[in-house]
Amino acid sequence: MPVLEDLYPSRVASVPQRTERRDPVVYGGGPARGRLGGVELEFFERNGYLFVENLFGTAEIARVNQELRRLARAEDIRRLEETITEPGSDEVRSIFRVHRLSQLFDWLSRDARVLDIACQILGSEVYVHQSRVNLKPGFRGKEFCWHSDFETWHVEDGMPCMRALSVSIALTQNYPFNGPLMLIPGSHKTYVSCVGKTPEDHYRQSLKKQEYGVPDNESLQRLADRGGIVAPTGAPGSAVFFDCNVMHGSNSNISPYPRSNVFFVYNSMENMLGEPLHGLKPRPEHIAARERFEAVKPLERG
Amino acid sequence: MPVLEDLYPSRVASVPQRTERRDPVVYGGGPARGRLGGVELEFFERNGYLFVENLFGTAEIARVNQELRRLARAEDIRRLEETITEPGSDEVRSIFRVHRLSQLFDWLSRDARVLDIACQILGSEVYVHQSRVNLKPGFRGKEFCWHSDFETWHVEDGMPCMRALSVSIALTQNYPFNGPLMLIPGSHKTYVSCVGKTPEDHYRQSLKKQEYGVPDNESLQRLADRGGIVAPTGAPGSAVFFDCNVMHGSNSNISPYPRSNVFFVYNSMENMLGEPLHGLKPRPEHIAARERFEAVKPLERG
Repeated sequence: MPVLEDLYPSRVASVPQRTERRDPVVYGGGPARGRLGGVELEFFERNGYLFVENLFGTAEIARVNQELRRLARAEDIRRLEETITEPGSDEVRSIFRVHRLSQLFDWLSRDARVLDIACQILGSEVYVHQSRVNLKPGFRGKEFCWHSDFETWHVEDGMPCMRALSVSIALTQNYPFNGPLMLIPGSHKTYVSCVGKTPEDHYRQSLKKQEYGVPDNESLQRLADRGGIVAPTGAPGSAVFFDCNVMHGSNSNISPYPRSNVFFVYNSMENMLGEPLHGLKPRPEHIAARERFEAVKPLERG
Repeated sequence: MPVLEDLYPSRVASVPQRTERRDPVVYGGGPARGRLGGVELEFFERNGYLFVENLFGTAEIARVNQELRRLARAEDIRRLEETITEPGSDEVRSIFRVHRLSQLFDWLSRDARVLDIACQILGSEVYVHQSRVNLKPGFRGKEFCWHSDFETWHVEDGMPCMRALSVSIALTQNYPFNGPLMLIPGSHKTYVSCVGKTPEDHYRQSLKKQEYGVPDNESLQRLADRGGIVAPTGAPGSAVFFDCNVMHGSNSNISPYPRSNVFFVYNSMENMLGEPLHGLKPRPEHIAARERFEAVKPLERG
């Protein structure tokens, strides 16, 4: 962690603060093979996200879904700490570290269509900080409140700078009404510090329902009034790349149509985790990878 | 109530049943002044709803909102049984019987732009079975599960036939992401009976969270697979007319933007309430009007 100064303090003050982002959004250089053009990079820089329709094909996603169903049913997977169930049911809501639990998801995390973009934006080699599949069941999928990933990763994982991004790949059709990912464009340029202290082992609870690291309503209102709210929707295989500090969340899903997606979080190899803030103990490996800060190797095809 | 046979039994069997609607959707005759054309009537007949953008103007809706804010703040209104608060807060979620509590809302219920359409579709004079404003606050507006109004009105209020409709007038901008009303087009042609018995005084709880009169997931899935899901969105002053038996609900609202609307339920003067089913006692006047089955008088302008 920064020895001299924490650029992004949070959960210390009793009132929230909004400060300007201190880091670039799109980093130059690195091993990028230039998959994105200038217009797309500029869009990502300004808005903090990029939606790519049909990044993966129907047949590929069908295979991924088959693998996901296998994992969600497998007793040895369900028993893991990596597997989170819906509040009040034993239905699987998320499986973390899925790229280590399944070869297919490992391949997916190393596929050039996502990896190249991550390297290009972050301007370096990257490693997988976190991976997970989310299954938002039909009829009773719960909402996920607004948050900046970076605020959590900074405080709870000791991630020094904003040099990480997520990609969410849709595994089911995303409709406006089945709880799609919502983002506030431009919000990644403001750091909203949250109030309150983080209790130990907060992560166990926070994966079901957040209480700490929750931005205040006034800040959210201001960000949304300025940037609006988008909820990109599309066919399975569509993907949203989004900056680590963009505000995002999702509404409930009472529709009959489940919403599943897979997330990979790529962090720059030049943005290694330090100690968590406030003397918190590190979160477990499946939430924030530390054991192997190992650059993702591009998948060799053939 | 039907002396010989209940056409729409519900909450008696242990398995849900889907049966065909026995009543017309668009009734002929009556005092209608023909505000809707053939295309719109045919759309309503087939889909069970009709969306009309900008039915009311900006200035009119501004006045209605002003009145709504006054009501939601007024201590004598907040104290009434008519006023429902959000679970876990004292924020007003709904005010029932609002057309009797406020002259402005009374006028609105009698405005030709809604009343003529109600009379035209139902083919008779109508009275207000229920009225309410819903305020779905930003950040924490709760979802409202799928239901057919008619199922409830039939069982709990003794409404004999499907000859009623609602109009929901938007008082705020409706976005896809702030929990808009969702409907399943065509679902009004199927009656889904629900399982389980209704406890006494169910209505107190059901306005906060439904447990009885809840259609089963399989039926919802079938109806949605056939008809899809629509969520008409638009500017304040837009209105959705919908049949008493169309399946509808809404997702949560984590966006900063509250969603408010006013509902009027018009029932045909030829479809008076009888005794509730299963020996239930009648719900209170503000939920289901009985004291005055009095045809709504068109508002005289000028």
